[in-house]
Order: sequence, then structure tokens, then C-alpha cells
Amino acid sequence: MNGLGESGAGLRIVSQALDGHVPDRTPIWMMRQAGRYLPEYRAVREKAGDFLSLCYTPDHAVEVTLQPIRRFGFDAAILFSDILVVPHALGCNLSFEAGEGPRLSPVTNAAELGALRSELDPSKIDRVLEAVSRIRADLPTATTLLGFCGAPWTVATYMVAGRGTPDQAPARLASFTDPAFFTALIDRLVEASSRYLIGQLRAGADAVQIFDSWAGVLDPEAFRQWTIEPIRRIVETVRAEVPDARIIAFPKGATLSGLTELVLATGVNAVGLDWTAERRATRLALGGRVALQGNLDPLTLIAGGAALDKAIDALMEDFHGAAHIFNLGHGIRPETPIAHVERMIRRIRG
Amino acid sequence: MNGLGESGAGLRIVSQALDGHVPDRTPIWMMRQAGRYLPEYRAVREKAGDFLSLCYTPDHAVEVTLQPIRRFGFDAAILFSDILVVPHALGCNLSFEAGEGPRLSPVTNAAELGALRSELDPSKIDRVLEAVSRIRADLPTATTLLGFCGAPWTVATYMVAGRGTPDQAPARLASFTDPAFFTALIDRLVEASSRYLIGQLRAGADAVQIFDSWAGVLDPEAFRQWTIEPIRRIVETVRAEVPDARIIAFPKGATLSGLTELVLATGVNAVGLDWTAERRATRLALGGRVALQGNLDPLTLIAGGAALDKAIDALMEDFHGAAHIFNLGHGIRPETPIAHVERMIRRIRG
Repeated sequence: MNGLGESGAGLRIVSQALDGHVPDRTPIWMMRQAGRYLPEYRAVREKAGDFLSLCYTPDHAVEVTLQPIRRFGFDAAILFSDILVVPHALGCNLSFEAGEGPRLSPVTNAAELGALRSELDPSKIDRVLEAVSRIRADLPTATTLLGFCGAPWTVATYMVAGRGTPDQAPARLASFTDPAFFTALIDRLVEASSRYLIGQLRAGADAVQIFDSWAGVLDPEAFRQWTIEPIRRIVETVRAEVPDARIIAFPKGATLSGLTELVLATGVNAVGLDWTAERRATRLALGGRVALQGNLDPLTLIAGGAALDKAIDALMEDFHGAAHIFNLGHGIRPETPIAHVERMIRRIRG
Repeated sequence: MNGLGESGAGLRIVSQALDGHVPDRTPIWMMRQAGRYLPEYRAVREKAGDFLSLCYTPDHAVEVTLQPIRRFGFDAAILFSDILVVPHALGCNLSFEAGEGPRLSPVTNAAELGALRSELDPSKIDRVLEAVSRIRADLPTATTLLGFCGAPWTVATYMVAGRGTPDQAPARLASFTDPAFFTALIDRLVEASSRYLIGQLRAGADAVQIFDSWAGVLDPEAFRQWTIEPIRRIVETVRAEVPDARIIAFPKGATLSGLTELVLATGVNAVGLDWTAERRATRLALGGRVALQGNLDPLTLIAGGAALDKAIDALMEDFHGAAHIFNLGHGIRPETPIAHVERMIRRIRG
């Protein structure tokens, strides 16, 4: 499916870093690099009509995934999609209202979970996987293609609440009041997410990232139960079918000890660090074991100028000589000036 | 001003813990214990009309502060007020819309900061300090009275945005784009907060707590600059006038290394821990040096039953024998059943 064959993979410096090598130069990509800060993205988004059409129409998904590669030459492309495709393909209603964020049919008890599909609806997922294959075929040989999914905990927070919430209280409360239901929900998501990532890897993704955007609200025991253990099982299931699968975990807001436990328990190839991470301590604890990805504060990329330069220099110094993949500590924001992205890339690549 | 005199202070077990002693039994209070989960609070709130009238009318503030002491016999009362009283008394417009949270006139640049008062408006603050004196006079001798303020960083996040924000981006961005303004804003808040806490201590507060609710969004360097250093200066200024002032810092979302740096740099008597804290590691690092306050997940108090009992037992075991003040890891929520609070107190006090 990957028209480029294995011969090209050696050039992919993001993949090299994930394999534990220190590349000759620091690879760069940005979370949400295919997004609203780009006029060419906004043009496609307008044409597509709604957000979900963008995700499920391969022509659109391929195009917006490739846009930031064409413009900036990032070292990795990441599939344009959304973490809520998984609950959608399990049968939840899903819509994105302008300025409102996602709305799902809530799943708050065993009966509502029972009404969902047990496996992902191929009529939805196959369109995403078609986009993956086509992106890989169109990408420069040296560019790594990343697939992704949301981590079960984070996806569950949206499913239980039926929307995004400031503190993920509905899911946290459900884990206390109805642990049997909540465990079954996480189990369903572990299984579905594993199949989804296997599909993406078979369709041509060189690596996959698991986004646990709300890991930071969990106490240490809950972090083990709802972040580490589900990711561990996904990694295990995926590697049972794709033995060399490269996997990045991004448990946003995790503590250093939480990150360390996660790395040891799951065997992921890399961890993403948010902008609050203690970089040197993290490198000391984990740098020899996994690649470290991150962690420029996206607000410095809005600020630009000396604040941006200083933040980049500090980051590059902290990770100099490590298996480091430059990224933001969170997704790029729509109001970010493109000139600042260009400045960032120049500063890193010299 | 304190009708009870010094002789009673020896009985105040929260104060004892703050002085570094391990009390005979674990003292208990709850953040937001005077709040909407209590019908008697809702009755006063309705009578007062709007939220700010509650804060600035000593009759009301005294009454709602005392309500949870009467009902539950907590070991500490905390002044009923709001962290935004400080910007309000510096001249910001402030209102609380039902269901909307606070709205302030934003302070986004040096000119807007220059238009504010340099010192707190006594016509506002004196009413709060009157409430403090009256609460102390009405409290049981054995009950510690806590005053409080918001930490400069957290108060600044509301002032710059003019409201609460999900990720405090406006203030973080201002710190990058206009550091001179942002530093001046923090300086103004350090000075005003110090005077405010000195006033509360002189009016009869036995200790004060500094709430840095949004400390968790700061990277390590910013945490030093905007959380630790302002709190250090407040502690220094307050103790220059009230040498034995007992001070609790609650930097919500801080990492263990951040907490440790804060304790060493500021000399606070205690740190508050949110529900995600790594309790045993925190105790190991800081237990001999400061009192530890926290950290029951407020959602377990909504859940009740076995989940609540288990969470309390784990917490009490982790802190057994330490200078520990039982508290929640965040404010109690309005929907919390009173019966669960009673259950919690019974379980802790036996």
C-alpha cells in the first residue's frame, strides 16, 4: 500500500528518532499543523462545509494533511482527522457546532454503552484509511506519516459528558459511581482504538500517536488505571499484529513520575511533552529509553520575536544530543501568524 | 480585636499543624465549605441579592462563614469572600453574572494598569476586615480562622482576560508579549495582597491561605517567576509586619519539584495539595518541613459510599503521623450531598 517501499524509510528522521537514534538534525512537526492558521486549510474547510466532511472525504483529508508539508517541509505529516471519529464509528451521534466544540450523544451507563456497536463501522473508518494510503503515496519519501487516535480515557471524557468539559468531571464521577460501566467503556475503546491504529499502520502510517489530552486531571492511581493500562493494552494489541509498530504517547499534564511509569509499563517509542514539562529532569529520567517530543509553548509562537527565539533556544539546549522530535507542547492556535512558524523553522534548522 | 485572647490559641489544632506539630487528631476543613451545597447558605445568598453584596456586607459574610462551623464543627473557618475583591478594591469593575462567572474590566496594558488605584480602596476592604474581626469573636475558641487572598498570578489571569478562561491564555500571552506591563501588574498585586493579608491577620485571622488556582499552567521557569517569587515577596512583606504569620500556599497543579522549590524559597507553613498530588512522594519530600493540607477528590464526595470511604482511607493512611490538615483537593461542589460530608467527617474523626 505504501508506494515508496521500505527503501525510503531510512531517510525519515522522525522515524529514526522513534527508533531510538539521534538524527543528524532535529526533526520538526507541529500538533494541529493542518489547521485554521493556514489560509489554504480554511479554503478547503469552507468548501467541505462541515468539519466531519473534511475528516471523511479522502480528497479533503489528503489535501489538508499535505498542505503544511508543502508549505513548511515538516519532517512528519499527521493524518487530518479527529479523536472523536472512534466513538462516531462506534455509533455515537457526533456533530461540531461552529464555535461550540463537539456534541455527542452521551454514553453514561451500561445500557447506552450496550446500544453502541462492538466494532468500528467500516463505512466510516475505511474512508479514513483510504486517506492514509493516499497521503503516504503522495508524501515525500523522507517525510514520516503519523496516524493517531485519542486515548481511551480522553475519548471517554467526551462520550460520558456528550461534549468537552472544563474539568472532565462527568467521566471522573462515573468512574467512582459506576466503575463497572466505566471499565466496560474503556475496554470498548481499547479494543476499537487498537483496531483503528492497526488499520492506519497497515494503510501506510509509519508511526501512530495516542493523544491523552486530559490525563492531567487523574490522580496517580487513576492515571495508572485509566491512562497507563489502556495504553499498555493498545500497544500490546497493536504490536501483536504489527510487531515493529512505532507508537508515541502524549499524556498531556502527566507528572514526571507518571510519564516514567507509563514508559516502563507500555514500551512506547516516544512520549510527547506538554509545555509545562520539566525538560531536563524528563531527559535525565527517560532520555536514554524513549524519544522525547515537544514542547514549545504555542503561545510563544503567537508572541513571536525575542520571546519565541528565547523559548526555542532554551528548548533546543535542553534536548541537545537527545533523540528529540521538535514539536509544540499543545496544538498550534488558529491566530498564530504564519511568519512566526517560518521564523521557528529557520531558527531550528539554521 | 480577638475577644478570645491568646489563651485559646493552644487548642486550635489547625494552627498547631501549621506550627509544625502533629495534632492529637487530624484537623478538618473544606475549601468552599461556606457555599451553595448548604441550604442555609443559599438562603442568605438569596437575601443578599448578588454575590458581591454577600462579600461586602459583614452581617452576611459573618453568617455564611460560621454556618459550616455550626453544622459540622470544622476545625477551621475560612472567611467568606472572593479572590477578586483585590482587583475590585484596586478599581476594576467587577460583577458576577448568574451561571457566567466573574466579569472584570480587563487590564491588558500599562495604561489600563496605570488607571487603577495604587492601594486598596479602604471603603471596600474595611468591610471585609470588619467581618474578619466579628467572625473571630463569634467562633469557638478552638476553631482556627483563616483569611485568604488569590495569588498574584491567578488574580492576574482574571484581570488580563476580564473573566475566567479555560487555559489562562490571555495572561500567559501577555507575559510573553509585554513582560514590562505584566511584571508591573504582578508587582501591584504583590503589594496589594500583602497589605490585604496583613489587615486580615491584624483583624483576627489565625492564618492565611494564598490560592494559586492556575499555577498548573505555568512552565517551570514561569512557575518560578509568576508563582514562587510573588508568593515569596508576599510572605516576606507580611512577616515583616506580622512576624509569626502562618501562611498556607495552594499552588493548584504544581509538580512535586515545583512545590518543593516553593516551600524552600518562600518559607510558608503549609502547602495545599490538589487531588492529583503524589501524596507519599510529597510527604517524603516535604512532610518534615511544612504541614500538608488536602487532598480528597471533591468528586468522591459527590459519589459517596464505598468510593468515598476508600478514598478517605487511602488518604489518611498516606498522611498518618504527619502534620496533616484534612481538606479537599479543590472546592466542594454545589451538588454535593450533605450526608456525604457528614459521612466523611465521621470516617475521619471515628
